[in-house]
Amino acid sequence: MKLAMIGLGKMGGNMTTRLLRSGIEVVGYDRSVEVVTKLVDTEGMTAASSVADAVSKLGESGEKRIVWLMLPSGEPTEIQIQNLAEMLAKGDIIIDGGNSNYKDSQRRGAWLAERGIGFMDAGTSGGIWGLENGYCLMVGATPEIAKVVEPILIALAPSKENGWAHVGPIGSGHFTKMIHNGIEYGMMQAMAEGLDLLKGKTDFNLDLAQITELWRHGSVVRSWLLDLTADALKEDQELSAVAPYVADSGEGRWTVMESVEQGVAAPVLTLALQARFRSQDATGYSYKLLSMMRNGFGGHFVKSVND
Amino acid sequence: MKLAMIGLGKMGGNMTTRLLRSGIEVVGYDRSVEVVTKLVDTEGMTAASSVADAVSKLGESGEKRIVWLMLPSGEPTEIQIQNLAEMLAKGDIIIDGGNSNYKDSQRRGAWLAERGIGFMDAGTSGGIWGLENGYCLMVGATPEIAKVVEPILIALAPSKENGWAHVGPIGSGHFTKMIHNGIEYGMMQAMAEGLDLLKGKTDFNLDLAQITELWRHGSVVRSWLLDLTADALKEDQELSAVAPYVADSGEGRWTVMESVEQGVAAPVLTLALQARFRSQDATGYSYKLLSMMRNGFGGHFVKSVND
Amino acid sequence: MKLAMIGLGKMGGNMTTRLLRSGIEVVGYDRSVEVVTKLVDTEGMTAASSVADAVSKLGESGEKRIVWLMLPSGEPTEIQIQNLAEMLAKGDIIIDGGNSNYKDSQRRGAWLAERGIGFMDAGTSGGIWGLENGYCLMVGATPEIAKVVEPILIALAPSKENGWAHVGPIGSGHFTKMIHNGIEYGMMQAMAEGLDLLKGKTDFNLDLAQITELWRHGSVVRSWLLDLTADALKEDQELSAVAPYVADSGEGRWTVMESVEQGVAAPVLTLALQARFRSQDATGYSYKLLSMMRNGFGGHFVKSVND
Amino acid sequence: MKLAMIGLGKMGGNMTTRLLRSGIEVVGYDRSVEVVTKLVDTEGMTAASSVADAVSKLGESGEKRIVWLMLPSGEPTEIQIQNLAEMLAKGDIIIDGGNSNYKDSQRRGAWLAERGIGFMDAGTSGGIWGLENGYCLMVGATPEIAKVVEPILIALAPSKENGWAHVGPIGSGHFTKMIHNGIEYGMMQAMAEGLDLLKGKTDFNLDLAQITELWRHGSVVRSWLLDLTADALKEDQELSAVAPYVADSGEGRWTVMESVEQGVAAPVLTLALQARFRSQDATGYSYKLLSMMRNGFGGHFVKSVND
Repeated sequence: MKLAMIGLGKMGGNMTTRLLRSGIEVVGYDRSVEVVTKLVDTEGMTAASSVADAVSKLGESGEKRIVWLMLPSGEPTEIQIQNLAEMLAKGDIIIDGGNSNYKDSQRRGAWLAERGIGFMDAGTSGGIWGLENGYCLMVGATPEIAKVVEPILIALAPSKENGWAHVGPIGSGHFTKMIHNGIEYGMMQAMAEGLDLLKGKTDFNLDLAQITELWRHGSVVRSWLLDLTADALKEDQELSAVAPYVADSGEGRWTVMESVEQGVAAPVLTLALQARFRSQDATGYSYKLLSMMRNGFGGHFVKSVND
Repeated sequence: MKLAMIGLGKMGGNMTTRLLRSGIEVVGYDRSVEVVTKLVDTEGMTAASSVADAVSKLGESGEKRIVWLMLPSGEPTEIQIQNLAEMLAKGDIIIDGGNSNYKDSQRRGAWLAERGIGFMDAGTSGGIWGLENGYCLMVGATPEIAKVVEPILIALAPSKENGWAHVGPIGSGHFTKMIHNGIEYGMMQAMAEGLDLLKGKTDFNLDLAQITELWRHGSVVRSWLLDLTADALKEDQELSAVAPYVADSGEGRWTVMESVEQGVAAPVLTLALQARFRSQDATGYSYKLLSMMRNGFGGHFVKSVND
Repeated sequence: MKLAMIGLGKMGGNMTTRLLRSGIEVVGYDRSVEVVTKLVDTEGMTAASSVADAVSKLGESGEKRIVWLMLPSGEPTEIQIQNLAEMLAKGDIIIDGGNSNYKDSQRRGAWLAERGIGFMDAGTSGGIWGLENGYCLMVGATPEIAKVVEPILIALAPSKENGWAHVGPIGSGHFTKMIHNGIEYGMMQAMAEGLDLLKGKTDFNLDLAQITELWRHGSVVRSWLLDLTADALKEDQELSAVAPYVADSGEGRWTVMESVEQGVAAPVLTLALQARFRSQDATGYSYKLLSMMRNGFGGHFVKSVND
Repeated sequence: MKLAMIGLGKMGGNMTTRLLRSGIEVVGYDRSVEVVTKLVDTEGMTAASSVADAVSKLGESGEKRIVWLMLPSGEPTEIQIQNLAEMLAKGDIIIDGGNSNYKDSQRRGAWLAERGIGFMDAGTSGGIWGLENGYCLMVGATPEIAKVVEPILIALAPSKENGWAHVGPIGSGHFTKMIHNGIEYGMMQAMAEGLDLLKGKTDFNLDLAQITELWRHGSVVRSWLLDLTADALKEDQELSAVAPYVADSGEGRWTVMESVEQGVAAPVLTLALQARFRSQDATGYSYKLLSMMRNGFGGHFVKSVND
C-alpha cells in the first residue's frame, strides 16, 4: 500500500510517521524542505519535491493512486485539489483529511467525480496524541472508495476494529467531524466554567490540580479533555503566563450555522463559541453601550477608561 | 397628606420634589445636610435632623404616620426598618420604595405586622426622569394600606389613572419590580448586541446615532431605552472615554435565582446578566483554561500575556 | 410622483393606501385580483393585470420609472427582479421593500447596475400599524437614487423629518433591518421570559394584564412591544387557545449567522432565536438523549412516552 | 474498621457491598427491611433495625464511631443528622455522602462541632458503576477527621492512590461535587446537542450508534459519558419509547446560583440546566406570549391549540 501525503505539519507529519511504522509506503511533500528531510531520515519516507513529483512517484496512471491532503481548510486545500485534478487520472483518489467545510467537500467530490477521480473526506481527530494513540477517522465516501482506502484507515486508527468508520456519502465525514468539534467546544467550556467557579470560591482555597486529577478516577466527568486539563494544571494552576484569549476555528462556527440552518437549538455549543468571541474582543463596545444606557435612565456612574 | 422621606439621593430627592409640587407635605431626612437644606430652600420641604426627628414631625402616635424609605437595599434598609419599628406605633406605615429583595420585604412585612405596623413594598421605576415624567409604582400591600397611601402614589405616578398599581400582597411589589429589571437587562443587552453588530459591519460604515434615531419612529423596537440610547450616541458614538465595564445590581441577579427556584428557563435574562459579569472579569481565567486545553490536545499556539 | 407596487399583501397593500392618501400615484399588481380591485375601488389605485402591465402603465422608457417590490424574500423576489430587468430600461429603479437577505441585495444591486438599472433596498418596519403610524424605512442606495425616491419615503414614513433614512450603500438598508429584527427577537424574548416568571409565582396570583399596562407608564421597559403585549393580555391572559409555537423568519437567523461571521458574541439575540426553535421541536430528541444518559450513569428513572 | 451506613439505596447499597468486600465491617440500616436482609444474606452486612440500633452496634461511646449517611438531600438528611447528634458522643463522626448543599454542610458541621461531633462531607460520584469501578470521593473535613476515615475512603475509591481526596474544610467536598455535577450537565448537553444535529442532517442518514462508538476511540471527545451514550444508542437510536423529559437535581441548580453569587459567567452550565427546565415545561406560556406579540405587530398567524 502506498500513498502521497501533502502537508507534513503537526497532523500530516505524525500521520505519515504512523503510516510508515505500519508498513505503508508514503511519498511526502511539504513546503518546508527541512520537514521533508527529517521524515526521510528518521522514518524512511520517500521525499517529493513538489505535488507533481509526489504524484509521479505514486506510479503510472491506472494504478489507483491515492493522495492524502493534510492542509489548512479553505484556499490551500481548494488550490491543491484543483491542481491535483489536472495531474490525476480516472480511478485515482484524493482524500481530504483536513478540517474542510462539508459543503466544500460535497462540491469538490461532485466536481472530481465528473473527472472520474474519487474523493474521500476523512475527518481526523486525535491531535498531537494521534501518533501514539491512533487517530479517530470519520470517513465520507462511496463504498468502493472506502474499501480501497481501508488499509490506510486501519493503520492510522487506534486499532483494526476501532476508531475508523465509513459513516456515509461524501461530505458526511467532514460533517461528523464538524459536529465532533462542536461537542468538543461545549465540553471544554463546561469544564472551564466549572473550574472558574472552583477558583472563585476563594475561602475554600481549592487546589484545582488536585481536583482535576481526582475527577479522572471514577467520576462521571472523566474524559480525555479532563486528563489533559489535569496535566496542564500541575505546573502553574494560576496560568499566569497565559493570555485570556482563545482562538476558534471554522468547525465551531460552522456547527452553529448548521444549527441555524436546521432550526435546531444548540445553546451550549453556541455559547461555547461565543465565549471565545468574547475573549477575542479587545474593545468591549457592547459593554460601553450598556454602561451608557444605565447612565441614561438611572444616572448611574459610568466607569471611564481612565478609572 | 404628609409623609417622611428617608434618603434623599437621586431617587428620593426627586420623588420628594415631585410630591411637594403636588401639594403633599414632606418631612425629609438624609445623612447629607446639604441635600436636606437644598430641598428645604428650593422646594419647601420640612427638614428633619434625624430619622427620629422626621417621625416626630409627622405628628403624634395614632395619626397613621407614613415613612417612605428610599435607601440602598440590604443593610441600610434593614437597619432603618428596625429603628423605625421602635419609634412607630400601631397603625403607622412604612413604605420601602427601594430595590429590596422581595423575600426580605415579606419577612419585614410579617415582622412589622406583629407590631401592628403596616408595610408596603413599592417597586419604583423611572430613574432620573421620574421627576418630570412620573414614576412607575408597583405596590405590594394589604388593600387597606394601599388605600391609605393612594394619594401619594398618584402624586408620584405619571397620572392619576396610570403608572401606579396595587399588584398584590406584601412582597409582590418588589417581586414585580425585580422582574421588571430582569426584562430591562434583557432589552438593554438585545440593543447592545444589535448595535455591536451594526458597528462590526465596517464596510457599511454605519452611523449608529442616525440609525437609533431612525428606529425611534415607526419601528417595532421603539422604546424608551432606545430613546436614551439614541441620545447617548449623538455626541461620540465610539464611546471612547467609556470603560467596557457594566455594573449589575441585586435585581438582575435575583431574577436569575428566581428562574432557578421556579425551574423556568430564562436564557435571555440570564445571559444579559452574565454579559455584565464578563465585563467585570479582569482575569479571564476560564479563557486561559481553554487556551491551555487547546494546546494540550492540538498543540495549538498559546497566546502569552506578553504577546 | 408615481410608482408601481408589486405585491399588495398585509404590507404592500397598506403601504399603497398610505402612498395614495399622500397624493402619490400607485399602479398596483397582486396575484389576487380581489385585492387589486379593492384598492382600486376604495383608494383609487391604478390596477395592473401583470407586472408587465404595471411597468407599461408607469410610462415610457426614459422616465425613471420606479417599481417597489413587496414580496416574500427568496425566490419570489428573485424571480421578479429578473423579470423586471428584462422590462425596465436604463435609469429605471427597483426598490426591494421586503425582508431580503442583504447579501442578495448587494448581488442584485450589482447585477442591475451592469444593466443601468438603479436599485434600493428599503428595510421596512412597522407591521400592520404602519398604515396609521407610518413606516420606519432603512434605505440602502446610491445618493442619487435615494434623492429620487425621497418623496415616496417621506410619504410612507411617520413624518417628513423622521422615520426614514438613507443609511448607506446598497445592502445596508436590509442589513440594518436585519439587525433591527434581531433586536426585536431579543426584546420579545426578554418580555416573554419576564412574564413567564411573573406567572410562575403562583402564590402572588399576579394579574399580567394589569402589570403590563402599569409598566407602559413611566417604567424603564416601556416600549411599543409592551403596548401590544398589554393589549393582547387584556382578554385572556392564560392564552389558552394559543399553541406554544413561535414561527421565525429569515432575519432572526441571518442575524445569528452575521454574529458568527463577524466573530462577535450575541448571546441574547441567539438564544431568542433558539427559543423559537425549541417551540418548533415536536420530538425533543436531545431531551430523550439526556434522559437516557442519566439512566446510564445513575440508574435514574426514564420517563416513558406512556407515562 | 467499622462504620454504620444509613440508607441502602442504589448508592448506599452498592457502597456497602464494596466496603464489605474490602474487609470493612458495615452495620447497615434502611427503611426497607428487604434491602437490609438482602445485604446481610449476600454480603455479610450486620443488620440494624433502626438508626439507634445501628449506632449501638458500632460500640460504646468513646470509640470514635463513624456513621455514613447516604440519604436524599434536604429534609431526610437534616432529620437524621439531628437524630444522630442526640445519640452520638464526643469524638464520633458523621459523614454525609449524599448530594447536600455545601452551605447546609457548613452549617451542620459547625453545629455538630459545638457538640464535639466530627463531620465530613463526602461528595460521591460514580453512580451505579461505582460498585465495580470504585467511587470518586471529594472530601471536606478537618485533617484529623480525614485521617481517621481514610481507610474507608480507600476502600470505596477506584484504588489506594486515586479517586479520593481531602480537598479542603467542611463544605468543600459538597462544593466540589456540586461543581462536578454542573460540569456533568454541560458535557451531557453538549453531547445531546451535537447528536441532535447529526440526526437532523437527514440526507446523510447517519448511524448515531456507529458514530458514538467511533468517537470512543482516539477522538478528542472520548469520555465516560460518551461510552454510556454509545451503549444506550445500540438498541434503539430513535429512543422512541423515551419521553422528552429530563429531570434535574439540586446540584445543577446550586451551581447556577453559585455563579450568580460569585458574579461569574457560566453560560454553558446555566443553559444546560435551562434545557432541562424547558423539557419539563408542559405549558409553553412564553411561547404563547411570543406568538401573540408577533400577531400584535405583524398580523402574523397564531397557531391555535386545535391546529
